[in-house]
Amino acid sequence: MRPKIYLLGDSITEDSFEDGGWGASLANHFSRTGDLDSGFDWLYEIFGTLCYLFDVQVDVVLRGYSGYNTRWVLKVLDKVFHAVEGGDGFEPLAVTVFFGANDACLPDRCSAFQHVPLEEYKRNLLSVISSLKKRWSKTQIILITPPPIDEETRLRFPFIENPLGLPERTNEAAGAYAKACIAVAKECGIPVVDLWTRMQQVPDWQNACLRDGLHLSRGGNRIVFEEVVMKLKDEGLSLEVLPVDLPLLANIDPSDPLKAFQQY
Amino acid sequence: MRPKIYLLGDSITEDSFEDGGWGASLANHFSRTGDLDSGFDWLYEIFGTLCYLFDVQVDVVLRGYSGYNTRWVLKVLDKVFHAVEGGDGFEPLAVTVFFGANDACLPDRCSAFQHVPLEEYKRNLLSVISSLKKRWSKTQIILITPPPIDEETRLRFPFIENPLGLPERTNEAAGAYAKACIAVAKECGIPVVDLWTRMQQVPDWQNACLRDGLHLSRGGNRIVFEEVVMKLKDEGLSLEVLPVDLPLLANIDPSDPLKAFQQY
Repeated sequence: MRPKIYLLGDSITEDSFEDGGWGASLANHFSRTGDLDSGFDWLYEIFGTLCYLFDVQVDVVLRGYSGYNTRWVLKVLDKVFHAVEGGDGFEPLAVTVFFGANDACLPDRCSAFQHVPLEEYKRNLLSVISSLKKRWSKTQIILITPPPIDEETRLRFPFIENPLGLPERTNEAAGAYAKACIAVAKECGIPVVDLWTRMQQVPDWQNACLRDGLHLSRGGNRIVFEEVVMKLKDEGLSLEVLPVDLPLLANIDPSDPLKAFQQY
Repeated sequence: MRPKIYLLGDSITEDSFEDGGWGASLANHFSRTGDLDSGFDWLYEIFGTLCYLFDVQVDVVLRGYSGYNTRWVLKVLDKVFHAVEGGDGFEPLAVTVFFGANDACLPDRCSAFQHVPLEEYKRNLLSVISSLKKRWSKTQIILITPPPIDEETRLRFPFIENPLGLPERTNEAAGAYAKACIAVAKECGIPVVDLWTRMQQVPDWQNACLRDGLHLSRGGNRIVFEEVVMKLKDEGLSLEVLPVDLPLLANIDPSDPLKAFQQY
């Protein structure tokens, strides 16, 4: 069974297979040939086929639910992961848990129905994590904080009618939920990508990282991809250590190709 | 269980989650929000939330093996699909079978070890199809022919040493394997994407559709994506008819969001 990484989250996860999306990039990174980018061509030149030994295969499985907050996802978590229950062989390598952007909608603005109070958000995140840990004791959980919010741009991309003319989310609120997410990660001893802080380190992050003040641009997707790959690597889940399930072309002897397939 | 579409093939499948790749595009197309592109915004404006009823969810699963031909993949087919055996619930919606580019390597050129004679290629394709049909009687199989070859460009991208200085593949040979693939599809009564012909209808297909004379450019990837979506639609597997597994945001009542989750 090819190992799996699940991406659980809201629309920022659901959209992650768009062009340049962080989910598609992860799937490509963990495809058989990996994605050593062109800067690493010299590796191939020096080590040749040895490089292919770094190749791994992981299925990246999308479980993004647009608009969802932690309160709603808790209601459906059993259904989301229903079919992947069972034996150890089905235990995923990792699950990214990426919620908070909707919980952080302000309670007195147009998207109030998505709002979840900060303390409940923390409790809910803890419940999601404990539910996953109960199901799969060895699976690596990685939290991702909500991204920063560009309030001005949000006004131009309303999801529903906005008679108040005020943004439904603020960067300050997103920051509070990001801090709560980090606190939960610390409490559980699991890694967290602090996207809220990381993105605001980028010059002109409002346009460089976001496309509508909330969802990710190509540059923002790249950051999530790189940060998740780094966290996975920190936890020992990198191209260098994960196995390949079937013979790679570079390990097939051109003078006797079928030898590589004798064991199958 | 979320329905699955498997992509089985060689490097053109393995690379399909690269930026702009046809696999990633399929995964995005079949994510919960689909990918009605911007030209279809008017649909949202007229039908509003009804549009979301078109949304579906399918896992697109990558099973690409760089360099493989039909002879090699037959040796490992049981292992490739080992874990997805079993009950009807695990039967995938569809499998794309995309081989021939390596089989068509010429037997007297530098990549001869990947060559498979034309008649054996046909027999092997038939065996792959009958093996899949035996495993899953209801799964839709879609064949894809090898793409055309730009021989001149191939010389600049050798996989191994090429002392002869002649291209390891020719467009004529690729065309013969494409025709054989189409004949197999006809014999089995299954759909086939004739990529070899389709791509050569594009002006400057050598550069518009290919990036190294064999593998796909962004434009080539777009064609495979569109053709596969069309074939799936012809077989009744389209956004309009496939179900959604959990409430969509547009179907959640803002005045009582939790009502949508009562059944879970």
